[in-house]
Amino acid sequence: MKINVGIVGYGNLGKSLEQVILARNDCNLVSIFSRRNVKSKFNTPIESYENISLYKNKIDVLLACGGSFSDIENQMTQLVENFDVINSFDKHKKIVSELERLDKLAKQSKHRLIMSCGWDPGFFSNLRAFCYALTGEVPVCFWGKGISLGHSDAVRKLDNVCDAVQFTVPNKNALNLARRGSILANEEGLHSREVFVVAEKKYHKCIENQIKNIPNYFKGQMVKVEFVSLEKLLKLKSKMSHKGELISTFKTVHGSKCGICVKLKMASNPDFTASIMARYIDAVVNLKNKNLTGAFTSLDIPVIDLFKAGSRKKITGLLC
Amino acid sequence: MKINVGIVGYGNLGKSLEQVILARNDCNLVSIFSRRNVKSKFNTPIESYENISLYKNKIDVLLACGGSFSDIENQMTQLVENFDVINSFDKHKKIVSELERLDKLAKQSKHRLIMSCGWDPGFFSNLRAFCYALTGEVPVCFWGKGISLGHSDAVRKLDNVCDAVQFTVPNKNALNLARRGSILANEEGLHSREVFVVAEKKYHKCIENQIKNIPNYFKGQMVKVEFVSLEKLLKLKSKMSHKGELISTFKTVHGSKCGICVKLKMASNPDFTASIMARYIDAVVNLKNKNLTGAFTSLDIPVIDLFKAGSRKKITGLLC
Repeated sequence: MKINVGIVGYGNLGKSLEQVILARNDCNLVSIFSRRNVKSKFNTPIESYENISLYKNKIDVLLACGGSFSDIENQMTQLVENFDVINSFDKHKKIVSELERLDKLAKQSKHRLIMSCGWDPGFFSNLRAFCYALTGEVPVCFWGKGISLGHSDAVRKLDNVCDAVQFTVPNKNALNLARRGSILANEEGLHSREVFVVAEKKYHKCIENQIKNIPNYFKGQMVKVEFVSLEKLLKLKSKMSHKGELISTFKTVHGSKCGICVKLKMASNPDFTASIMARYIDAVVNLKNKNLTGAFTSLDIPVIDLFKAGSRKKITGLLC
Repeated sequence: MKINVGIVGYGNLGKSLEQVILARNDCNLVSIFSRRNVKSKFNTPIESYENISLYKNKIDVLLACGGSFSDIENQMTQLVENFDVINSFDKHKKIVSELERLDKLAKQSKHRLIMSCGWDPGFFSNLRAFCYALTGEVPVCFWGKGISLGHSDAVRKLDNVCDAVQFTVPNKNALNLARRGSILANEEGLHSREVFVVAEKKYHKCIENQIKNIPNYFKGQMVKVEFVSLEKLLKLKSKMSHKGELISTFKTVHGSKCGICVKLKMASNPDFTASIMARYIDAVVNLKNKNLTGAFTSLDIPVIDLFKAGSRKKITGLLC
């Protein structure tokens, strides 16, 4: 029997997920839910987000692809009431409070939510946790150069911003030091944030000031804001490539030196994020089979649960 | 309350684990169990392996550090009968059959076994599984140059071998091709195996032949055997450094290219393996708290379970 999947939000991530789900022969894409008037070039049914609760018993797993800045927090309360949900919520500093809040709601409604399932948070969170378990130190992580979907969305939500995009740029000196085994303390200095904004001239000063003070996303960081034409912005926004690098250098209790370095490269951040999110569909089904409810992050999901129940022997034999 | 830990086997891995456990203030190292007449330079109590069942109720978690070639398989049946056990069993092709056999035994005796918890199998198995989930392809892995503890032990177990060591050496051309994004099919050609052996001259031909035919370890692979003096061998054996590299290059369903590359470097393979094995002590305790019994691999353990129960909120906040 196929898994009935729904997608909420039809931006870059939602569009990527649509293709991933359509390519899976074990899933049935029931509908895309949007607040906007959108059209799918694959003829996927589109439904107004307002009507989503009508689908309560027609969808097994809902993939929530709204921008993290407010959509996910606003929508989750309602979604978890009616559905099993996966999201890629990326407001790192709010993950724990959302996890606790939504865990209670999901347990009450007997649903499951797997939060923050992208490459970071998500895959990189698991790697950080493994390194932290080994060393007691959080490994240093570099992101970019690439667009941060969450940060871009945070800027777009400001008043009088027509459109915006944010590139995260690693500090080259810091990256080279870390690669050579130096242990870097100050996380704030590892990156700069380049923000490109389209807005009427009279709002520039106010917008720049607002951006630099958005808590969790920009406040206290190296931020460069540039106002550009819509044409230039659209060109910048088409640059979907991204990179990530995690470096952990440490000594074992015996004093012997070890290093773990993980490099990610992706031509399209939303495509890669969508590929990861879609793997957690099986994790939701496995949680359901185990009669577990509540909110989880990727840290709580063993990698075997990204595969169908019943394939443990095959997967263990192939990969261990 | 401290976790009572025992160590079985006092070779390189056992010695490294002794130091890791002694450095942990949440563990009490009850005893080391050995079939040989050994002495700990840290004054850890040493007990004959024959008497291990007398410790049935005195040890919470037993770390099994015998050589994989035969020790682990031979000992596990008895150990799982009486203890919760962690091992780093590295005979990749036998992991599934051992997992199934020992799962039954552990369930009968109401114990837990976590198998194959090193860096490979172990950490790299989890990474392979994640990449496989994303791509449907097993990523290519390179090991070395470095000593394989399992392969060295397999040679040492042969008749008339005084001592031996095996270096795994990646094929440079293959490594460069993989780094540049080529997808390599033939796993057998990615490495060569350099074996150094001390033995009486009259046995050389026979030993070389035997080595090249050891199934799972050498048969069908590029193997170079060199007979050396004991002095040279001891020097070679002191080279404890090792490396690992995992490369996954793939296209998402949208055709966009992604790459994941993980590099490990360690000055001491047994020290690093010991650091990983010791982290699974908390995983055993967590399985016990959940009333789960049976045999598991690292694929079955969520990374949050490498930490103490009750620390989920702190760890999630720090690492997600």
